[in-house]
Amino acid sequence: MSDIPSDGLRVVPLGGFGDIGRNMMVVETSEDLIVIDCGIMFPSDEMFGVDYIIPDFDYLEERADKLRGYLLTHGHEDHIGALPYVLPRAPAPIFCTRLTRGLVEVKLREKGLRDQEIVTVEMGTEYGFGSITAEFFPVAHSIPDATGIALHTPAGLMIHTGDFKIDHTPVMSEPTDLSRLASLGEEGVLLLCSDSTYADRMGSTMSELLVGEALEQAMLAAPGRVIIATFASQIARVQQIIDGAEASGRTVFVTGRSMERNVKMARELGYLHAAQGAIRNISEHTSFADEDVLIVSTGGQGEPMSALSRMSVADHRDVTIKPGDTVVLSSSPIPGNEAAVNRTIDNLFRLQANVIWTGGGKENVHVRGHAAQEELKTVLSLVKPEHFVPIHGEYRHLSLHSRLAELMGVPPENCHILLDGAIFELTPDRAEIVGETSGAYVYVDGVSVGDVNHTVLRDRKHLATDGVVTVVVPVNHQTGRVSGRIDIVSKGFVGMDESPDLREQVEAHIRKSLDRGDKTLEWHELQETLRHEVSAFLYRKTRQRPMVLPVAVEV
Amino acid sequence: MSDIPSDGLRVVPLGGFGDIGRNMMVVETSEDLIVIDCGIMFPSDEMFGVDYIIPDFDYLEERADKLRGYLLTHGHEDHIGALPYVLPRAPAPIFCTRLTRGLVEVKLREKGLRDQEIVTVEMGTEYGFGSITAEFFPVAHSIPDATGIALHTPAGLMIHTGDFKIDHTPVMSEPTDLSRLASLGEEGVLLLCSDSTYADRMGSTMSELLVGEALEQAMLAAPGRVIIATFASQIARVQQIIDGAEASGRTVFVTGRSMERNVKMARELGYLHAAQGAIRNISEHTSFADEDVLIVSTGGQGEPMSALSRMSVADHRDVTIKPGDTVVLSSSPIPGNEAAVNRTIDNLFRLQANVIWTGGGKENVHVRGHAAQEELKTVLSLVKPEHFVPIHGEYRHLSLHSRLAELMGVPPENCHILLDGAIFELTPDRAEIVGETSGAYVYVDGVSVGDVNHTVLRDRKHLATDGVVTVVVPVNHQTGRVSGRIDIVSKGFVGMDESPDLREQVEAHIRKSLDRGDKTLEWHELQETLRHEVSAFLYRKTRQRPMVLPVAVEV
Repeated sequence: MSDIPSDGLRVVPLGGFGDIGRNMMVVETSEDLIVIDCGIMFPSDEMFGVDYIIPDFDYLEERADKLRGYLLTHGHEDHIGALPYVLPRAPAPIFCTRLTRGLVEVKLREKGLRDQEIVTVEMGTEYGFGSITAEFFPVAHSIPDATGIALHTPAGLMIHTGDFKIDHTPVMSEPTDLSRLASLGEEGVLLLCSDSTYADRMGSTMSELLVGEALEQAMLAAPGRVIIATFASQIARVQQIIDGAEASGRTVFVTGRSMERNVKMARELGYLHAAQGAIRNISEHTSFADEDVLIVSTGGQGEPMSALSRMSVADHRDVTIKPGDTVVLSSSPIPGNEAAVNRTIDNLFRLQANVIWTGGGKENVHVRGHAAQEELKTVLSLVKPEHFVPIHGEYRHLSLHSRLAELMGVPPENCHILLDGAIFELTPDRAEIVGETSGAYVYVDGVSVGDVNHTVLRDRKHLATDGVVTVVVPVNHQTGRVSGRIDIVSKGFVGMDESPDLREQVEAHIRKSLDRGDKTLEWHELQETLRHEVSAFLYRKTRQRPMVLPVAVEV
Repeated sequence: MSDIPSDGLRVVPLGGFGDIGRNMMVVETSEDLIVIDCGIMFPSDEMFGVDYIIPDFDYLEERADKLRGYLLTHGHEDHIGALPYVLPRAPAPIFCTRLTRGLVEVKLREKGLRDQEIVTVEMGTEYGFGSITAEFFPVAHSIPDATGIALHTPAGLMIHTGDFKIDHTPVMSEPTDLSRLASLGEEGVLLLCSDSTYADRMGSTMSELLVGEALEQAMLAAPGRVIIATFASQIARVQQIIDGAEASGRTVFVTGRSMERNVKMARELGYLHAAQGAIRNISEHTSFADEDVLIVSTGGQGEPMSALSRMSVADHRDVTIKPGDTVVLSSSPIPGNEAAVNRTIDNLFRLQANVIWTGGGKENVHVRGHAAQEELKTVLSLVKPEHFVPIHGEYRHLSLHSRLAELMGVPPENCHILLDGAIFELTPDRAEIVGETSGAYVYVDGVSVGDVNHTVLRDRKHLATDGVVTVVVPVNHQTGRVSGRIDIVSKGFVGMDESPDLREQVEAHIRKSLDRGDKTLEWHELQETLRHEVSAFLYRKTRQRPMVLPVAVEV
């Protein structure tokens, strides 16, 4: 891979290209380097025991001397969550909007990272990073203060949309700045990188404003208490709930740790507005009449320890669900959470609550935060990019978005599907993948970062499926024969505890297997023989394959 | 619990009430007992290593002398899959339609159960079971030959819908017999038990006929090969695919073990019709022009070993996906399978196939098999039952269906939400839950039936999350001190292999812990001390809690 030419630009996605989550992109010239976003991804079911996944920072760390700053598009975890892991390895100032700053500061404080330089950016102002100049512009998303970023580079103008939708009435902070996109388009855009999360959805995503109307309707119609669960970062939604509560004569009570924290922070920063006394401590709600109570809660994803989940199993300290309560899930399940959400809804039904959720035909109590096909086409039509790179999506999303770009007039050879780790280089004359770096998953498990690997996950899967059988065999070093009691300990394996016979049979089989007393066996061969013999024997008897851990003890 | 009165009827759900799957209901009078369906349920993610779940048969087994027969509504696994487990414990003849019989026979043969008496039922004929008379009537569902069952009992008339939707053009076998339901309604129905799977969907489910049109369109429009994945039991769908292939000049090739088996069986039984030479062996397809090829495949649920999944990762023996191929998923993901299906679609996109699936905006390539709210109301309006019991659904489905029944005029006190294990008794005068039997999950894991319990699952979850550490400590019986080498084996735990230091620290900690040489410790106390000390030590060092299996070896 040769050096970047002086009129060149490298775009290196380290996360979010081919997967949803851990969004991170390196933008690099011959002299300078900036990073856009640095997020985490949540593990799928087969990643046993993994807390979350972060990008591989090697490419960045090797170029830390060129690093001029971290530019954050907004404050969601999949865009800021990996900052505590990257900053010690590649320090640089952070540039973001005010609300994003509030969220980042909480996060860094929790990890003991103080003294981090953070610059609060203003829309339309230019920020210089050597050969790169950045301008943030507002976009509508499911969190206020979200931005896209325009980058002037030696190769030309590049636009990164961040996560966005086109919502002309987003309730809070500014709509996606289509005028600015249009004027940038007139300037001539070399490269558009645009959010693909919803590239498989036809039409347009509904406005946040309609959700407020639906929630207010629910509050007006409900005969008793109303409990609304939503994401803690959905500040605009919370504002609409506060407004609806006021319109329906209800007082607002907040429950759930992240919700309490975010409401407090958003009020301090001036994002959330509520009349004096309109929001009160959850413990006070029982002294209000049911029809005057509105509870805002976490738990819209069925998270086991969340406030709503606790209510649904009658395990919440302050709120006991009763007939006449109305529970609204102002959220929709993130893929993978469907079963947990359904379980929560079922439990609420058992407690005879009236449950309102999008799956139950009440579509308007939630809208999602990403642009569907017609919105994506609008952005393409305004920006008219020479090259197009779909960002943030699984492969089918990137592929479908790329087809939309072709449909909107970008030449097929200028639509580039990049995956994490691709090193993509543009100059005014050419655009191509010039190399590859690691786009690998780095697993975070407790305090361990990167130690979990495929072997560990494979072993965990094996253990999860059929359990473990430990066999401790005292072997006479002289004779190679079993000498003494064989200890067998099994966990998560069904054969042994239910069948003392089987335990004895295994013992007998081990004695027989080692009875020829092959002194020439090396110690590790002996262990391997034990492992093989016991595994095969148990499979014959039970059709299961527990992990067998043999320990030969020399006596 | 007193005896069943001579004019009484007991309904005892053993599966499918509060969960989707393992459908089974006991219907019992003072003299006789019949069973409707006997199915399996597939495990959810947290049921590590479980193959599937069957009902608890204790209630039935205790009354095996009264058992007169198994009545099967249709041939899906969640209605017939547990028969091989129940028949040896409570033998009785099976009554079902012809296609169901074909599927049951395959299943019993596989399990070595021969000589089972099976009666092929005719619609409208009455079958006597002592004090109970049964009449099967046709319903439309996602498999041909599906039925509901009307039961004349001493308490009155009872209707069990089975799984159904109202499809006036079901393509194969008969539509749901609304006329018969109406005339039964005129007779006076004591109890209606109706399918609740889709009670949360508004409107009506689309007809199977529209799917045929959509598939034919896809075949006509596709420039190259077309591969359509669907359920192997969807015989009507397969017929429509064969018809579409003929209309678009394509020859049909079948792949996937269950698809091949079912197509063969359905042709032999006369359900599937195809011209001579219209269906050929998959290995021959390469000698046909691409635009003349139609492949019917398994794998619509993203099952890892299915034909479509293999194609998507270039691992199918006969079919190699290439640009120009069109792949249609004529299916929709069963809850829990979303991620696997998306992975398959992504992989097909990578191979540059054109993928058509319901999630991609092509809704018409699949319809589901259950009645939505307007259809459920139609049945309620025709049957006009005195009592209503919603069947087949999670709690919210049962609850919503019960509300529909109230809306349709069934008195609220006559709408009964039963859960698995409830013993529900009706006479002409009263209806109430009179007792409870076990509705517990019985886990099948390999050849083990019922041995997997909560302890085993909890251990497997623990193992899956943080792995296992086995510690073998030679202890001097005289002194209670460590005497010799400590063996530590870990799997699925990240701390140990990466840090030889940690291993030494654990050893040192064990020696220290046992160094006071407390001879008074019982052997199991010694093991418990070891377990506790090592667990606590590892948690302090790694923030992880592997399962620790200590084995103290006496030396």
